[in-house]
Amino acid sequence: MTIVLGQTLLCQSQTSNEKTRGYRQAHEREILDEFVKLLSIPNVASDKPNIRANADVIVEMMLRRGLKPKLIEVNKGSVPAIYGEWFTPGATRTIVFYAHYDGQPTDPKHWIGSRPWEPVFRSAALEKGGHIVSLPMKGAIDPEWRLYARSAADDKAGVMAILAALDALRSMNVTLTSNIKIFFDGEEEAGSPNLKEVLIRHRDLLTADAWLICDGPVHQSGLKQVVFGVRGDTNVDVTVYGAKRPLHSGHYGNWAPNPAMQLARLLASMKDTSGRVTIEGWYDDVEPLEGSELQAISEAPDYDEQLKSELGISRPEGAGKSLLHLINEPSLNVNGLSSGDVGILARNIIPTTASVVLDLRLVRGNDYQRQVRRLIEHIVKQGFFVTDRDPSDDERSKHPLVAKVSHRNGGYNASRTPMSLPISLRVVEAVQRTTSNKVVRLPTSGGSLPLSIITENLATVTITVPIANYDNNQHAENENIRLQNLWDGIEIYAALMTMPK
Amino acid sequence: MTIVLGQTLLCQSQTSNEKTRGYRQAHEREILDEFVKLLSIPNVASDKPNIRANADVIVEMMLRRGLKPKLIEVNKGSVPAIYGEWFTPGATRTIVFYAHYDGQPTDPKHWIGSRPWEPVFRSAALEKGGHIVSLPMKGAIDPEWRLYARSAADDKAGVMAILAALDALRSMNVTLTSNIKIFFDGEEEAGSPNLKEVLIRHRDLLTADAWLICDGPVHQSGLKQVVFGVRGDTNVDVTVYGAKRPLHSGHYGNWAPNPAMQLARLLASMKDTSGRVTIEGWYDDVEPLEGSELQAISEAPDYDEQLKSELGISRPEGAGKSLLHLINEPSLNVNGLSSGDVGILARNIIPTTASVVLDLRLVRGNDYQRQVRRLIEHIVKQGFFVTDRDPSDDERSKHPLVAKVSHRNGGYNASRTPMSLPISLRVVEAVQRTTSNKVVRLPTSGGSLPLSIITENLATVTITVPIANYDNNQHAENENIRLQNLWDGIEIYAALMTMPK
Repeated sequence: MTIVLGQTLLCQSQTSNEKTRGYRQAHEREILDEFVKLLSIPNVASDKPNIRANADVIVEMMLRRGLKPKLIEVNKGSVPAIYGEWFTPGATRTIVFYAHYDGQPTDPKHWIGSRPWEPVFRSAALEKGGHIVSLPMKGAIDPEWRLYARSAADDKAGVMAILAALDALRSMNVTLTSNIKIFFDGEEEAGSPNLKEVLIRHRDLLTADAWLICDGPVHQSGLKQVVFGVRGDTNVDVTVYGAKRPLHSGHYGNWAPNPAMQLARLLASMKDTSGRVTIEGWYDDVEPLEGSELQAISEAPDYDEQLKSELGISRPEGAGKSLLHLINEPSLNVNGLSSGDVGILARNIIPTTASVVLDLRLVRGNDYQRQVRRLIEHIVKQGFFVTDRDPSDDERSKHPLVAKVSHRNGGYNASRTPMSLPISLRVVEAVQRTTSNKVVRLPTSGGSLPLSIITENLATVTITVPIANYDNNQHAENENIRLQNLWDGIEIYAALMTMPK
Repeated sequence: MTIVLGQTLLCQSQTSNEKTRGYRQAHEREILDEFVKLLSIPNVASDKPNIRANADVIVEMMLRRGLKPKLIEVNKGSVPAIYGEWFTPGATRTIVFYAHYDGQPTDPKHWIGSRPWEPVFRSAALEKGGHIVSLPMKGAIDPEWRLYARSAADDKAGVMAILAALDALRSMNVTLTSNIKIFFDGEEEAGSPNLKEVLIRHRDLLTADAWLICDGPVHQSGLKQVVFGVRGDTNVDVTVYGAKRPLHSGHYGNWAPNPAMQLARLLASMKDTSGRVTIEGWYDDVEPLEGSELQAISEAPDYDEQLKSELGISRPEGAGKSLLHLINEPSLNVNGLSSGDVGILARNIIPTTASVVLDLRLVRGNDYQRQVRRLIEHIVKQGFFVTDRDPSDDERSKHPLVAKVSHRNGGYNASRTPMSLPISLRVVEAVQRTTSNKVVRLPTSGGSLPLSIITENLATVTITVPIANYDNNQHAENENIRLQNLWDGIEIYAALMTMPK
């Protein structure tokens, strides 16, 4: 019976998917024009005027589609989330489609050949020699072209795919199978500091049978995937202190303590050469994967060797474990490190401070605040006096090693939805309808989203259906989306909006 | 006989010193006006138009004094050294007075309240609450005031003190006891890459009975000092490599190697917690100090406790050895460290590279190229493939750890002049004549100058007679000279120009 139903659905959906594709093929330029306009607005959440300009443009886009958009703000002047809806008479299921319109901060001088908020098309990926190209006036657009801009992939691609999927379905007069709500976050890359308050205040509006999350990349192999969890995430800044003023490295070198060397020693104490974190208790709370989850991982393509070759990695961390296994462990990474200057500005000094930004990823079972406490206890064990502000003269005089540790706002825990729920099965089936290749199912993504905030505050589950190419340079310079991934994304989201109950 | 001569000289020189002081007191504004003008010209050696503008202004200053200045250039367009002379009929001794007019690079945004090449006076040191003040139209200028600008201390103070000392002596119609030659280097902070060639080409012009070097700070206690040696110096840049492109720290964290962590581990392997360098053979070549040198060190004031308190240092490196002993050992210091970004620009990425600038100081017996080889051998022993360029794909694929090591140009060895030479004794006596406090004598400075290039290429010795306040922030932001130190410097150099044969 299930099999028959599956076959029936396959036939129907092929037709429906072909229609979506036809719509897209006829409207590629319109879609890209609208997308480029959106990508041209700087979208770092702390840049208040510009993030508001993004919200205004998205509201216009949703108004044109009859989605009854409204801004949700916790306080006057806080970054707005954008809500919209399209209800279908008789539908008994409600799905929230989530994406975020803010992007990571970026330094324009690190971008090669273009700038973060001045979108350009390239004939291929930059690393593969892609050069800047103009859209042809008519005729087919090569789907291997890339669109380079901050958030081209992460995550304005999600905004665009959801809205274009609705356009396709409306143009075909399709009756949707769910009431659709849209939620576009405006400060995800800043850790969604207001999301919890938004969910609590608007619980009735935002509760649904499921939240489908359009964020992150497809599998490294290029296969479509459905991801049932995300890692938690939090960041910690650590600064260690040398002398109160910069010192001449000749007159004081080998007498005055060097904070860069102290920080190096501290960092080296945190992980072994295989990449395993040596902080006490780091792995204690991890909930092990269940059989079905291990099975799904084993069925996913092993892409590690190709990744190694492509990224120039000879020996990954993890003592031989695969990437897919390792993202089911909590991590500790250096995002950035700084002391004094390097290059042309380097001087023969002993710097006064050395700073590091650490990124802690968490898996199901971890609590982010407990994990940060373990980190701090480790720093104390290495002999440091730990404070949350610049040390006083008295503290400097008493303690040979001083570390300022600041836990950045916005941490959250991991989240994982059972793969066996009916909605989980329906989502996988819907994505499967858009491709003849086997859809990859993963218990968790390596990346993070504040999904635990959603499941902890609303009676719902979250499932992530990503669309971006995996080599999108997300969070870094030269971010880009491959056009075929955007086109696939539209088909996937149209299928999700029409999946059977 | 010696004692009687000493007493006689003391009486004469007190008179002479008082005259010099009287000249300075009557001309403080003129001296400072000329100095501020010189300090207003950016003077990083790589900034060719500006370094040339400095040379032009100094040549004008020397022309006004009848010093027959000329520029010495190795090639058309290279940074000029400036030569001048004042010969005295019948003098049988020739002394070269050395200073340098270039300064260390600096980032203006790190300066507090003023900018590197816009000199300001402050009522005291910035750290002591000194505020910006204007010179009074007339009346005494507080000698505790500071003048803030790049090279106010290091080393345009040397240029100014030498020229003002000559002004004072000329105004008194003093007959000098030596033929005086002046040599102002224009690329000392860049490692004096052309000095050797200059000395070889102009050997006859520049050979002298001694080179007296006006550079560096007086003793930390404020006592005047004579320094018979300098440490050698060289810099090495090390860059280690992660993946070829920046990676999302969630999707790849704990699988993709993190270069910041690799570099931390490498640096931690180079020194122990007491600050002792653990690179094999690091201390093997050191020529031990002789008895008279140890004696001079033991007679120098122990200033370590006061320095610790002032600098906010609880436990210096060196396992209890004093600063003066430690500068007689070769050192290894981190000048700067960088990977990814910290602060507002930090992103959740795994950086592609991590870089460090290392500063190697050398003492008598060390060879700088041998010391760099030891460093490279150590990096190899830590498992790194060492290259001198960015690694190829093939090199990345073969080697889990890759380090690019670049030995910057301009290294040189240490130099140390025997304290017992007649000229050494005369110099100490001359400085002693300007003060009732005991002059400190040191076998070596912690700092470096290319003095070995001078002694190896000319038949001469070098002796350093510094004048700057020790808290001058040399090489760092907020560099400054205490006015009393400039005034003392004029008296010292006038005394050196009139010291008995």
